[in-house]
Amino acid sequence: MQRGEIRTPAFMPVGTAATVKAMKPEAVRQTGADIILGNTYHLMLRPGAERVARLGGLHNFMNWDRPILTDSGGYQVMSLSELRKLTEEGVEFRSHIDGSRHMLTPERSMEIQRLLGSDIVMAFDECPRADQPRDEIAASMELSMRWAKRSRDGFDSGGDDADCAALFGIQQGALDEDLRAISAQKLTEIGFDGYAIGGLAVGEGQEAMFATLDFAPEQLPADRPRYLMGVGKPDDLVGAVERGVDMFDCVLPTRSGRNGQAFTWNGPLNLRNARFAEDTGPLDERCTCPTCGTYSRAYLHHLQKSGEILGAMLVTEHNLSFYQQLMAAMRETISRGRFTTFAADFRRDYLG
Amino acid sequence: MQRGEIRTPAFMPVGTAATVKAMKPEAVRQTGADIILGNTYHLMLRPGAERVARLGGLHNFMNWDRPILTDSGGYQVMSLSELRKLTEEGVEFRSHIDGSRHMLTPERSMEIQRLLGSDIVMAFDECPRADQPRDEIAASMELSMRWAKRSRDGFDSGGDDADCAALFGIQQGALDEDLRAISAQKLTEIGFDGYAIGGLAVGEGQEAMFATLDFAPEQLPADRPRYLMGVGKPDDLVGAVERGVDMFDCVLPTRSGRNGQAFTWNGPLNLRNARFAEDTGPLDERCTCPTCGTYSRAYLHHLQKSGEILGAMLVTEHNLSFYQQLMAAMRETISRGRFTTFAADFRRDYLG
Repeated sequence: MQRGEIRTPAFMPVGTAATVKAMKPEAVRQTGADIILGNTYHLMLRPGAERVARLGGLHNFMNWDRPILTDSGGYQVMSLSELRKLTEEGVEFRSHIDGSRHMLTPERSMEIQRLLGSDIVMAFDECPRADQPRDEIAASMELSMRWAKRSRDGFDSGGDDADCAALFGIQQGALDEDLRAISAQKLTEIGFDGYAIGGLAVGEGQEAMFATLDFAPEQLPADRPRYLMGVGKPDDLVGAVERGVDMFDCVLPTRSGRNGQAFTWNGPLNLRNARFAEDTGPLDERCTCPTCGTYSRAYLHHLQKSGEILGAMLVTEHNLSFYQQLMAAMRETISRGRFTTFAADFRRDYLG
Repeated sequence: MQRGEIRTPAFMPVGTAATVKAMKPEAVRQTGADIILGNTYHLMLRPGAERVARLGGLHNFMNWDRPILTDSGGYQVMSLSELRKLTEEGVEFRSHIDGSRHMLTPERSMEIQRLLGSDIVMAFDECPRADQPRDEIAASMELSMRWAKRSRDGFDSGGDDADCAALFGIQQGALDEDLRAISAQKLTEIGFDGYAIGGLAVGEGQEAMFATLDFAPEQLPADRPRYLMGVGKPDDLVGAVERGVDMFDCVLPTRSGRNGQAFTWNGPLNLRNARFAEDTGPLDERCTCPTCGTYSRAYLHHLQKSGEILGAMLVTEHNLSFYQQLMAAMRETISRGRFTTFAADFRRDYLG
C-alpha cells in the first residue's frame, strides 16, 4: 500500500479510539506491526469523523503514518449502541457515550472512513449472532450483500481519496457452508480488493470456528487477502493460518495486557497469581520484547496488584510483541515450507 | 552520590509504589530527572521491604539505576493508614490496603529504607497539621527531634549499607520561627548529610509557606542540601529556590498528568476544556518534550475525554519534562547570576 507494506499473515493491533491502548505509536511499530485498526463507530462519536478530517486525518491525529484499516461500524453499532433500529436503509442508534442520535448507512460508513483517511475500508454489514435461526442468518446475510453493493458504489463515488485506499467486502452466513458460498459469490461479483470473513468469534467456540474456516476461506478469491475479523487467541491464529487466513485483528493482546494476562510460547499467564510474587524470571524466556529484556515477573505482578498504569503498559507491549513474533514465525516457516511442523510444535508448547 | 550526580536545585518525581506512575523509568530519566522518590509506607505494605530486598533492592526491582530518596513513612502513615496509635515508641497502624497491623518506629523506618536500598534516607518524623495549637506543634516537634536522634543511631548501626547512603534530618515546627529554630539546632547537633523542611504544603497556602521559607532555610546548615518536602506548583518552586531551597518532590506533575492538567510556561491548562477540541498547537510552544514535539492539544483533549491511558502517559511525560526544564532554567540563571530576572519573567508569563 502507499503508506507501507503489509507482511502476511498479519496481525493488526486494535486502536479503537485513535490509540492502541497504553502504547505510544512508535512502540506499536517497534513490536513489528505493519498496520493497525481503527473503529468507525467510536471515532464517529468521539471526536467525530468531520473533526478528524479537519485535524488532518486519523494518521496525523494519532501519529501513525503506516496503513490503517477501519471497520465499518456495523458490528459495534449492534453490540455497543443503545436503542437500535435496523432498516433496509441502515441502522439508527443512540450513542453509548452521550445518548445522541445517529444513523449509519453503507454510504455514511464509506464517507466516515474516507474522512478518517483509512487505507483499508470495510464494507458496511450486519453481523448476526451465530445461534439465530437459519432463515434469520440468511436474511441478514442477504441484507449485508445489498449493503456490500451500496458500500462499493459509495466508496467508488468518493473521488480521488478512494484511489489510494482499498475496499474489502465481508462474507457472512454464520456457520452455514451454503450461505457462506452464496455470500462469497455475491461479493466476488461485486468485486473487492480483499475479503473478510465476518460473523465468527462471536461465541461459537474454536471448534465451530475452525469447522467454518475449513470451507469459508477457499470460497473467497485466492488472489486477494482474506481477513478473519476479531480473532483471536494465539492458537486461533495458528489454526486459521493453516486454513488459509492472511489477516487478523483482535483486542485480546491489548485488553489482556491491561488485566495482567500475558501470552507466552508456553501458554497464557495470569500475573495476578501469587506464585509470581518472587519470580525473578522474564515473562517469556524466548521473547525479544523490551518488557522481557528488562523486568521480572515479580515486578509485573506487583504492578498488576497495585493497579499501576505501568503494568498495563509493559504487559500490553509484551503481548503485542508476542503476537508479532508469532506472526513472524508463521511467515518464516511458511516461506521455508515448514509451517506444518511449526504449528505442531507451537501447539505442543502453547497448549501444553 | 555513588549512583549519579544530583544537580541542584533538583526536582524529584515521585515513584510511590516502585513506579513513577504512567512512565517507563528510561523516559523519566529522559525528562532530565537525576533522582526519584520512593514511599516507605507504600513499599513496606506492598510488595514489602524484605521482599524488595530479596528481589535485589528497589533500583533493580523497578529498573532505575540512579539515586533514589525514600521518605520515612511518617507522613503517609498519619495521612493514609487507619486506626493509628501514636506513642513515644512509634506509630501502630492498619494498612489501607488490607487492614493488616503494622508498627513504624525510627529504627524500623531505617531498616526498611536500608532494605529498599535507598540512597537518601529520611529520618522518621511526625508531621502535625499547621493549624494545631502551638503547644501541640511544639510537642510534636520535640518528639520528631527525639525520633531524629533514634533515626541517626538506627541508620549508623546499619553497617556497610549505610556507608553508601546519606541520611537527612527533617525540621518541624510548622509556621513558627522559634520552634523551627529549635528544631534546626537540635538536628544540627545530631548531624545529618542534608536537611529537609517538613510540615509545609499541608494546606497553609503559598503566602504562609513563603513566610516560613523566609526564615526556615537559613536556620539550617548552609553547606548541606535543603529539601522542601512535598512542594509544589511551578511558582512554589521558583519562590522556594529564591528563598534558598535546593531539593523538591511533589506528586503534582504526575497526578495532574493523569487528570489532564498540563503545566506550561504560560500557566496550567485543563485539557478537558472544550476549547482545545480543534487546537492543533502543541501543549507548550517552548517545551522540548516528545509530547509537545509530536501531538496536538486536540489529540490530547480527545485522549483525556476518552479516558485513554495514553493521555495519562503523554501529559505526565510533558509535565515531568516541564518541571525539569524549569529546574534547568533556574540552575542556569543562578550560575549566570541572572536568577532574579528569570524569576520575575517566569512569574509574569506563568501567573499572567
